[in-house]
Amino acid sequence: MIIEVVAVGTELLLGQIVNSNAAFLGHQFAENGFDSHYQVVVGDNFDRMVETFRTAIDRADAVVITGGIGPTQDDVTREAIAVATGRKMIRDEEYAVAMRTRWESLGRVMPENNLRQADRPEGADPLPNRAGTAPGLALEHRGTWIFAVPGVPAEMELLITEQVIPRLRRAAGDSVVLVSRVIRTWGRSESQVAEMLDDLFQASVNPSVAFLASAGEIKIRVTAKAETEAGAELLIAPVEAAIRDRLGSTVFGTDRDTIYRVVQAMLIQKGWTIATAESATAGLVSAALTRTPGSSAVVAGGITAYTIDAKAELLGVSRDLMALDGLVSEPTALAMADGARFRFGTDVGVAVTGEAGPDPAETDTGTMVIAVVTPEGRMARTLRLPGDRERVRTYATTAALHLVRLAVAGEWWAP
Amino acid sequence: MIIEVVAVGTELLLGQIVNSNAAFLGHQFAENGFDSHYQVVVGDNFDRMVETFRTAIDRADAVVITGGIGPTQDDVTREAIAVATGRKMIRDEEYAVAMRTRWESLGRVMPENNLRQADRPEGADPLPNRAGTAPGLALEHRGTWIFAVPGVPAEMELLITEQVIPRLRRAAGDSVVLVSRVIRTWGRSESQVAEMLDDLFQASVNPSVAFLASAGEIKIRVTAKAETEAGAELLIAPVEAAIRDRLGSTVFGTDRDTIYRVVQAMLIQKGWTIATAESATAGLVSAALTRTPGSSAVVAGGITAYTIDAKAELLGVSRDLMALDGLVSEPTALAMADGARFRFGTDVGVAVTGEAGPDPAETDTGTMVIAVVTPEGRMARTLRLPGDRERVRTYATTAALHLVRLAVAGEWWAP
Repeated sequence: MIIEVVAVGTELLLGQIVNSNAAFLGHQFAENGFDSHYQVVVGDNFDRMVETFRTAIDRADAVVITGGIGPTQDDVTREAIAVATGRKMIRDEEYAVAMRTRWESLGRVMPENNLRQADRPEGADPLPNRAGTAPGLALEHRGTWIFAVPGVPAEMELLITEQVIPRLRRAAGDSVVLVSRVIRTWGRSESQVAEMLDDLFQASVNPSVAFLASAGEIKIRVTAKAETEAGAELLIAPVEAAIRDRLGSTVFGTDRDTIYRVVQAMLIQKGWTIATAESATAGLVSAALTRTPGSSAVVAGGITAYTIDAKAELLGVSRDLMALDGLVSEPTALAMADGARFRFGTDVGVAVTGEAGPDPAETDTGTMVIAVVTPEGRMARTLRLPGDRERVRTYATTAALHLVRLAVAGEWWAP
Repeated sequence: MIIEVVAVGTELLLGQIVNSNAAFLGHQFAENGFDSHYQVVVGDNFDRMVETFRTAIDRADAVVITGGIGPTQDDVTREAIAVATGRKMIRDEEYAVAMRTRWESLGRVMPENNLRQADRPEGADPLPNRAGTAPGLALEHRGTWIFAVPGVPAEMELLITEQVIPRLRRAAGDSVVLVSRVIRTWGRSESQVAEMLDDLFQASVNPSVAFLASAGEIKIRVTAKAETEAGAELLIAPVEAAIRDRLGSTVFGTDRDTIYRVVQAMLIQKGWTIATAESATAGLVSAALTRTPGSSAVVAGGITAYTIDAKAELLGVSRDLMALDGLVSEPTALAMADGARFRFGTDVGVAVTGEAGPDPAETDTGTMVIAVVTPEGRMARTLRLPGDRERVRTYATTAALHLVRLAVAGEWWAP
């Protein structure tokens, strides 16, 4: 079953609000095994609404319309559905009475405008809205289902989960389940990952394979359709295994795993504590390590040493070493990590020194050196990162957490 | 000029990410006086992309496409534009050489996949992308402008503001100039600000006045239309003056000013240096103070003291004081700020201690204490912040920077 989502609202076109409803709906439909080919946003313009509804009704098996069903004059979704399907508007007198009674029970007089909410295209069922005043509607028109729900997220979500999804599942005969697994990796570029998995991607139908890059991570999404969740998992398993096999320790988690949680869990399992020494990232690594609740079990603290004096006096880095090797160098980074371990008495020390730009003092902008020292070993890596200052600092922070992950796992490599 | 936004990406249809790009674009276009009738989302499906592009090209004066221009096999926006406009694909050999050179300068070999980014429909211009690797493109096709930009928000925003908007304004022939001034405030709620400026808001036609809340800041946007930029500025000036007069030192800047830059400029002017002492924010304040280039002139460094031992040993906070007053208390925060000043030998010390949640140990989640000590005075304030752990930490960081701003300015108040 193919579902099209149409959002009505000039405020969406003007960027005054973000269409988070579309993401909610997309997620709900995907989880229920429905396909989605298009999402459309149209302003509060009657003719364009009619045209958009007609196109959607033509090309989809079900159309879900959000917004434009309130009581005010610019709420014309109901009327536009009537025109798009060639139906008259009918007033539901029973519903009108119920509305009046409801207002009276609240001790208020219903504004006459609100009566419009009792109007519906002929043949449509009301979808009662227990979170607000505007009822939704459901209409079967020549084999296509049309639903209209409020644009207010809380009301929309309630109507979708309680009323629209069950109706759609019944209409679809309920046979297909869709399961997605997101495999999260760090350490290779999107194009490298794509090349390593090219045959899986080319062959991918069910399960399908897709790539997604975000903030230095490459995610691989494997999506399977089957009659049951277990059946879909069986389709995913060999593909996931092949991907993990090829990508090795660049894979750090699945689905909602984050590097923050993964590192914290690994440190807890080892019984190790950690401290940071930062120059260019200036606290971002320490902030990232404490992002997850429970971090005080493993994080002792950190020192941002922005000046040479702070590096020497607070972290105990030798001034001769800094003069000889440079502030942005692997020996300096390792000495900073040693300093953090010593100062805080922790098992692990992680250090970042680098040139975030835009006016490099000593080395090229984007050169970041990361060092990790654990009871089992030491490593330092020099990365050259693209982008502006903020991006370089963010990427270096992510990289530092991943190098901690690899070092704690005893994997002494790094890109 | 009517602009249609088309977002390409199955991850949008599946609800894995929210289409915040569409809101950014809608806002940009509205600010520049362009109309927008539709926004469409289409998955990574070649035929449907072609169909969607054709429809948009037919009904709009300009089409802005986001996403699908990366290096991987499922990035087919370039090819779909070629088919939709009946053009061949051409490889830009000069661009291909530039790409190879760039990869080599980073000491890496470019995967052959990436060469696809040098392919474009015949007649299209590349839009260089200095924030990433995928270039955008601009193509005039029978009087309709077509732009393709990356889906990654930071890259998209840069290409839109620097390259697409100026081209669209030229194409539109634009006789009316629209000038906006954003007045940035911190320290009062949106409803307080709205109440203080209610008469200006009610009277606002040209210039218009609007409010916008984001991450603790309240922004007031004053927008004027005139035949020249100078004319628009003349309309804005008296309204801006009235707003500044009423809001006093809650106003900290305009337009692209950030609290990072404002604090840095104030410290440079005073000739003061600063150091941080952080518990709950764990480095976020230090990272924020160093976000702007040139921060090494004023920031010496900071200490994240996550444990009691670190607070005592590294910051010199008395263990008796912590036991008596509590870790999350104004005396402890002031002692931490003193410790930062002493350790780093700076003029200013700023400290944050608090309970970010979700499982409060000592005080309620969201209780954050901030202290600032300068050569001219001392202040500590206890804030109760709403939201989850990440939000509380972010708000406290912003608050800390604003308290530094007020203290450096000699304004010893705080909300």
